[in-house]
Amino acid sequence: MSGSDLRSHALTIFQAGLQAANPVEAVERHLHLDGHTLLVHGVPYSLREFGRVLVVGMGKASAVMAKPLTTLLGSRISGGLINVKYGHRFPLSGIRVVEAGHPVPDEAGLRGTKEMIRFLGDTTEEDLVFCLISGGGSALSPAPAKGVSLGDKQDVTRRLLDCGATIHEINSVRKHLSRIKGGRLAGLAQPSALVALILSDVIGDDLDTIASGPTVPDRSTFYDSLRILSRYNLSEAIPQAALRHLEAGARGEIPETPKAMDPAFEKAQNVVVGSNAMAVRAAREKARELGYNPLILSSYVEGETREVARVHAAIAKEVLGSGNPVPPPACIISGGETTVTMQGGGKGGRNQEFALASALEIEGLNRVLIMSVGTDGTDGLTDAAGAFALGDTVERGQSKGLDAESHLAVNDSYNFFEPLDDLIITGPTLTNVMDLRLVLVE
Amino acid sequence: MSGSDLRSHALTIFQAGLQAANPVEAVERHLHLDGHTLLVHGVPYSLREFGRVLVVGMGKASAVMAKPLTTLLGSRISGGLINVKYGHRFPLSGIRVVEAGHPVPDEAGLRGTKEMIRFLGDTTEEDLVFCLISGGGSALSPAPAKGVSLGDKQDVTRRLLDCGATIHEINSVRKHLSRIKGGRLAGLAQPSALVALILSDVIGDDLDTIASGPTVPDRSTFYDSLRILSRYNLSEAIPQAALRHLEAGARGEIPETPKAMDPAFEKAQNVVVGSNAMAVRAAREKARELGYNPLILSSYVEGETREVARVHAAIAKEVLGSGNPVPPPACIISGGETTVTMQGGGKGGRNQEFALASALEIEGLNRVLIMSVGTDGTDGLTDAAGAFALGDTVERGQSKGLDAESHLAVNDSYNFFEPLDDLIITGPTLTNVMDLRLVLVE
Repeated sequence: MSGSDLRSHALTIFQAGLQAANPVEAVERHLHLDGHTLLVHGVPYSLREFGRVLVVGMGKASAVMAKPLTTLLGSRISGGLINVKYGHRFPLSGIRVVEAGHPVPDEAGLRGTKEMIRFLGDTTEEDLVFCLISGGGSALSPAPAKGVSLGDKQDVTRRLLDCGATIHEINSVRKHLSRIKGGRLAGLAQPSALVALILSDVIGDDLDTIASGPTVPDRSTFYDSLRILSRYNLSEAIPQAALRHLEAGARGEIPETPKAMDPAFEKAQNVVVGSNAMAVRAAREKARELGYNPLILSSYVEGETREVARVHAAIAKEVLGSGNPVPPPACIISGGETTVTMQGGGKGGRNQEFALASALEIEGLNRVLIMSVGTDGTDGLTDAAGAFALGDTVERGQSKGLDAESHLAVNDSYNFFEPLDDLIITGPTLTNVMDLRLVLVE
Repeated sequence: MSGSDLRSHALTIFQAGLQAANPVEAVERHLHLDGHTLLVHGVPYSLREFGRVLVVGMGKASAVMAKPLTTLLGSRISGGLINVKYGHRFPLSGIRVVEAGHPVPDEAGLRGTKEMIRFLGDTTEEDLVFCLISGGGSALSPAPAKGVSLGDKQDVTRRLLDCGATIHEINSVRKHLSRIKGGRLAGLAQPSALVALILSDVIGDDLDTIASGPTVPDRSTFYDSLRILSRYNLSEAIPQAALRHLEAGARGEIPETPKAMDPAFEKAQNVVVGSNAMAVRAAREKARELGYNPLILSSYVEGETREVARVHAAIAKEVLGSGNPVPPPACIISGGETTVTMQGGGKGGRNQEFALASALEIEGLNRVLIMSVGTDGTDGLTDAAGAFALGDTVERGQSKGLDAESHLAVNDSYNFFEPLDDLIITGPTLTNVMDLRLVLVE
């Protein structure tokens, strides 16, 4: 193999991963129409026994996710409403698509969600409700509890963030200030049957976390939320309407979010249709097809990008040195999402920075390629999704007057890779299952 | 398995790794006496054909490494001289052991090395010279070139370090200011046969780097060294005796360090007898014996400790979630050496910090153990070599009023693990092949 083979293989393997996360294909894979019976991940729904089939959704990819449903069920769909991000509209017959604010929720999102709630309130035992959930779903379906304003809720979240509260603590409080999160959407959909199709953008596919878990049991309580606020000394600082709501809940005056044994989940099915783990597995199959010894390292990878890159490069060196953890031709695959602690005002993103840090580690190793790409097709505030690193990357940079170390020092990976033509540009992919990283060693 | 099984397995696996790096056993493994023929890693040396058998050495473990030689060859050893660190003396019949300064070289080291040089200068074609090299060997065998003082050399090194020169650049200059580094010891040992037995303490076992490569070909030149100094604008700043020496070398007035085809290496054999990679492999065999599915991740691991720990924890999560990269019971093994960017004045070391960062990542995962240990038996300025992390570590800390996150924030891992009795204390091991890390998932 040559460097260009490594590149084309890496792209082919990445494309296979991306395809597994494509919202349309992800939903299609989990639906099967057999006469009048719709199988959802193997669970049968006899369409003859249902009255209406309704569709709701929230998230950047949710409208696209509805496409296979409309294709498969056509006029059998009686109506629906999906909240998407501005610009993520997708024409769907019989389903209203509302464009709303993300990452900052806005009035359009509030109105759309209010209508969704009204809509779900009208459902009967004869109805089958599909709920399409994807990344961004939380901000796109704002529904503050009665008496609490959107501004109040945002204020609470911001204060918790500032205090260093964990994401679980923040979610506990947010869910108890919402009318649909923390499983309440499942409660609203009662007594109809509910099928949630979920495109996961979180590590470990924690359903509780994706879009704040509108269709799954909540593990936290009003009382927990009050304790969290007092732990961070926020009880007096936050908007008092929010505090009063949580206190009323803790006194039992407002129903708790539904827990695991709640009837709300008796007729609910949650299916993760696409995820980073699925993309990683699809990449592995393609790598195997191309003749590589594939190895899934982990789809749970987090941490400071350049340090995580060094560990990946260390594995490449071990493959070269000893044939461990797998012998060459090796394809090590990892997923998840790293972070970048900004040190300069450069242009780039975590994936391009990963490639740049890798390039410095594999300098001179001409049988190695390391690549990192965001599955949503964007990386930082750039038009690239990621970049390649090869053994000659640093040297090719030098020949163009680009110093890899200086670019890394100021997070300026884009301006290093762009002149080398080593950026990976996919355009928007309409999906997001975090990042894919490949280490190829021939 | 229970948590205590995981602990005892982890310790057993670590001990197997440590044993592979034991200086005595490492040398023993590579020597075999067959009548009058000594096989060194398979290469025969007919003792009848040699006149004297001489032993030199430099490094913390070098005296201990000589033990199997004296056991095997007894009175056949005609003499020798080994420089070790103060306190690392070891009685050896027929070989003088000189204690010297480390990490800062001193007069004792200078005198010992001067004598070693004289000694090597006396060798003949009939002699067989063993050279025992281990970590610390560079500082323990100071031998500035003629006209250059030890202070001059240290000044040049410090200035290069301050300018951010790479370790290869620094080594290039240092080797060209030395009488024994960069292969010159092999030159001095001519025309005798030379066997270098090397205990590697560097990633990738780069022989060029261990103790500045006294017995291996040098790839750099006097001219390279001058260019490096001018690249960092140091030509005028450094002691002029050093500059004059390098200039004379570049003009061809002083012989170059010996290169790959130099006759100095015609009768030289370099054998890495112990290394991190060997320890990692021995750990793998023991893990397999205990019923684990072992996987060598990499022996090249470097980087910021807490971030590297997160990647290890991410792999543990994947094993639990999908059985990748290997199914449970899994034992993932990594080696190399991480670094710690100090953020507080706590007590700890990179291995204990690794365990503490891991504990936070695997909280609640009760089938996981992560452990990191320094093979030299010391970790930072503590009496511990490393520590364990288990799924209940953070909670057990809480029950004793210890907050894992706060301890990690100020690098105070020792004071977190000590009250939990989760430190690993081995005492000095007389070896150093960097660190061993284990991730066990049952």
